[in-house]
Amino acid sequence: MSSAKPVLVVIGTAISLTCILPVGLGNGSGTGASTAWTTFAKQGYSVALIARGASAVTELAKEINSSGGHRSRPNSPKPQYVVRVAVFNAGHGVWKSFLDITPQDVQDVLQVTVAAAFSFARGAILAFKENDIAEPNGKRGTFIITGATASIRGNVTTSAFAAGKFGLRALSQSLAKEFGKENIHVAHAIIDGIILTGRQRELKGEEFAQNQDVRLSPDSIASSYLYLVNQDRSAWTWELDLRPAHEKW
Amino acid sequence: MSSAKPVLVVIGTAISLTCILPVGLGNGSGTGASTAWTTFAKQGYSVALIARGASAVTELAKEINSSGGHRSRPNSPKPQYVVRVAVFNAGHGVWKSFLDITPQDVQDVLQVTVAAAFSFARGAILAFKENDIAEPNGKRGTFIITGATASIRGNVTTSAFAAGKFGLRALSQSLAKEFGKENIHVAHAIIDGIILTGRQRELKGEEFAQNQDVRLSPDSIASSYLYLVNQDRSAWTWELDLRPAHEKW
Amino acid sequence: MSSAKPVLVVIGTAISLTCILPVGLGNGSGTGASTAWTTFAKQGYSVALIARGASAVTELAKEINSSGGHRSRPNSPKPQYVVRVAVFNAGHGVWKSFLDITPQDVQDVLQVTVAAAFSFARGAILAFKENDIAEPNGKRGTFIITGATASIRGNVTTSAFAAGKFGLRALSQSLAKEFGKENIHVAHAIIDGIILTGRQRELKGEEFAQNQDVRLSPDSIASSYLYLVNQDRSAWTWELDLRPAHEKW
Amino acid sequence: MSSAKPVLVVIGTAISLTCILPVGLGNGSGTGASTAWTTFAKQGYSVALIARGASAVTELAKEINSSGGHRSRPNSPKPQYVVRVAVFNAGHGVWKSFLDITPQDVQDVLQVTVAAAFSFARGAILAFKENDIAEPNGKRGTFIITGATASIRGNVTTSAFAAGKFGLRALSQSLAKEFGKENIHVAHAIIDGIILTGRQRELKGEEFAQNQDVRLSPDSIASSYLYLVNQDRSAWTWELDLRPAHEKW
Repeated sequence: MSSAKPVLVVIGTAISLTCILPVGLGNGSGTGASTAWTTFAKQGYSVALIARGASAVTELAKEINSSGGHRSRPNSPKPQYVVRVAVFNAGHGVWKSFLDITPQDVQDVLQVTVAAAFSFARGAILAFKENDIAEPNGKRGTFIITGATASIRGNVTTSAFAAGKFGLRALSQSLAKEFGKENIHVAHAIIDGIILTGRQRELKGEEFAQNQDVRLSPDSIASSYLYLVNQDRSAWTWELDLRPAHEKW
Repeated sequence: MSSAKPVLVVIGTAISLTCILPVGLGNGSGTGASTAWTTFAKQGYSVALIARGASAVTELAKEINSSGGHRSRPNSPKPQYVVRVAVFNAGHGVWKSFLDITPQDVQDVLQVTVAAAFSFARGAILAFKENDIAEPNGKRGTFIITGATASIRGNVTTSAFAAGKFGLRALSQSLAKEFGKENIHVAHAIIDGIILTGRQRELKGEEFAQNQDVRLSPDSIASSYLYLVNQDRSAWTWELDLRPAHEKW
Repeated sequence: MSSAKPVLVVIGTAISLTCILPVGLGNGSGTGASTAWTTFAKQGYSVALIARGASAVTELAKEINSSGGHRSRPNSPKPQYVVRVAVFNAGHGVWKSFLDITPQDVQDVLQVTVAAAFSFARGAILAFKENDIAEPNGKRGTFIITGATASIRGNVTTSAFAAGKFGLRALSQSLAKEFGKENIHVAHAIIDGIILTGRQRELKGEEFAQNQDVRLSPDSIASSYLYLVNQDRSAWTWELDLRPAHEKW
Repeated sequence: MSSAKPVLVVIGTAISLTCILPVGLGNGSGTGASTAWTTFAKQGYSVALIARGASAVTELAKEINSSGGHRSRPNSPKPQYVVRVAVFNAGHGVWKSFLDITPQDVQDVLQVTVAAAFSFARGAILAFKENDIAEPNGKRGTFIITGATASIRGNVTTSAFAAGKFGLRALSQSLAKEFGKENIHVAHAIIDGIILTGRQRELKGEEFAQNQDVRLSPDSIASSYLYLVNQDRSAWTWELDLRPAHEKW
């Protein structure tokens, strides 16, 4: 875990920035990567990424830059752009029988899934508070948190993972209630199913990968996040679930 | 109640129909009217309406027809069009102390909110099962049910209303689980706040009506329903909540 | 269903009554029968029973009476005893694929599970309101409602049953909130598993019946209800779940 | 916080021990103290206490010992007694606007409320696994976790506290599911209201303290915990809520 400390990398053309989107990258093929790249980046949003490994980020950054995006200076003291979107997509997964869970597992879950979210949320909220209320949506910003089935249900191999995800969900609800009245929109998406990452594609094979009824496409998740960003102040969502058509639940 | 029996009115140009959208009209100025008219109808969907009063429906139908839409024959034995969207937006609201609730109140809630939903759902599911799986979304159809705060919380004046809305939510979840595997998408939207209907505008005044932070715009709800319709099979939503930015919850 | 209309039968020695316990009997071997008989009646509570069939009630009444209890006149205009406990244990179970559910199924569920509960609750609340706050518990009365897994989760064969059970749960929560401040205690017990009724004993065999880890004993449920009755005003429970040790959930 | 590290103190006459009850003490006047002392200790259970301050524990230990209980050696290599009950009653409360919450607050909540619970749960489960299934209840042991309103609802001043309490609830559910099949009973009690501790008595005054309708008596909570311990394998509870009669919720 010590090598997997979340790293914030800011990517994008500083000159045309109107948004900054910090997302988790995972291994560079899942929700984080897709959200950053496929959907938001293509629509002109700048992208900031949180990831737990340098190589995936570097690779994605290269890809984005070669398509016309540019990596901004991550340590620039004051950004010229306006932060409108933040996505917390990090998490530390542990799937073990309770008695196999180590104190380090518990710490990893709590630090990466919960403590990091508090820290990241603080940055996002402070940035949003600087903004005017923007039309047409009437918001200062949108903060999206990625949840999982384990956000609402503990189970036999998820005592550690669920403890983190439940905690993260609590944070999202508290923030939604506290900052809604300042026109800051906080949403929580419960991903209930397997996301088609590169690793899952390897594990489950091509037939699984091609069957859109049984796994979540990172692009489809990203589309939902974009919808949440586009919701206006009159009717916005705190929580929604996302699952494939044939998922058993 | 006997005068408030739900009426199904089918509206739209039969010739170009690709969808039929049955929605509740309320008094013609709320979610139902907006969903039907503002969003879906403008996008070329045909509209079918369930309402509990003839005048509002008639007026809306006129308005739609004068804009190029046409009222189809409601009793035509076999529609030529394909039903892709159904919205159950009916409900019977009772807000009374428990001891003031009459047996008739209970019957009205159960018949309009629950029994009518079973009947309507049957029609929608049977219609969807006739469809092929359509691209780009990979669905046979989308069935959306309108819920309320009372769908997830009973309270001191909502014992009857909540009994109906809880029951309706149960139906939506059961259907989502049973028919997801046939690529029929069932969703439930929890409306948590006051919808800006004509009646609320009168009751609360123009200042309230203009303040988008405190009440739900029927158009914004309709936009969310359109989003649900557009979700693809890889990542769709059973339940989301919708509330204004400044709602206390 | 027309032959299964709930029947209220009041049983007990009128002279020593301090409580009246209306419970559902089912077929005379389940929770209702046990609650009435094994636990409460033995402790000197009078018993009133709601059941959907005459024979089981008659048989139980005989058994109770031969043990020293007496059947009071059910139609006596004004009871001399004080009603302290009421249990709503009725329900109409339907387990079918959605498309096999008939309008009559829906009506049966709504009338027996929800409408009857409103009516019964009204009687219980009105009776409790006549009472003084009694020590040592500081209550006017306790009203317990029997729920099921389907009270909180819809599923592929429970669209009708869950609609009723969700509705009943909503009623219990609304009542708990409205009448708590009058020291009337309303509780909801979610029974998550198979109750060892006579019918289940036949269906599943003696090995199953003997294995206390896999099915709920009606007596154990009754004990929990007695605990709820004994809770004092300082810390009482709206909802608890009850399941066998080895139940998968 | 560094001075408030949880301390485990084992109290009781080693010779007659059949149970060990580790409970949180708080400041010695709340649930922990009452559970340990009033109810369980009086019934002959030995008591083990977790607390975050030495003085309260010492005082309680003196009181217990002067009543016939004795403090056992906490570091004895192998206990002669059988651990049948464990209560996790610790927690770190933070009630602050989100932007006032410090990283240390987050760490305190996560370590005391969640990480300590994992560690304590491990001890309890391992101890229980040594036991035979005991009659009359058919259990190896009962592990009770104290929750709060914040276990199921985040709010404007509870983002940190709720994150911990949600996480703790997740743990309790996971454990209940994993170890139920080994006849280990794990339960979670949601305390929804103000507990009458010595500090609350000072803060709110004697009128509040005397009014049993508005605050939870630690003794009543302890009675509920005793009930959970007494539930048998056929019908036991994972979760219940406890609140005073007049609590608004």
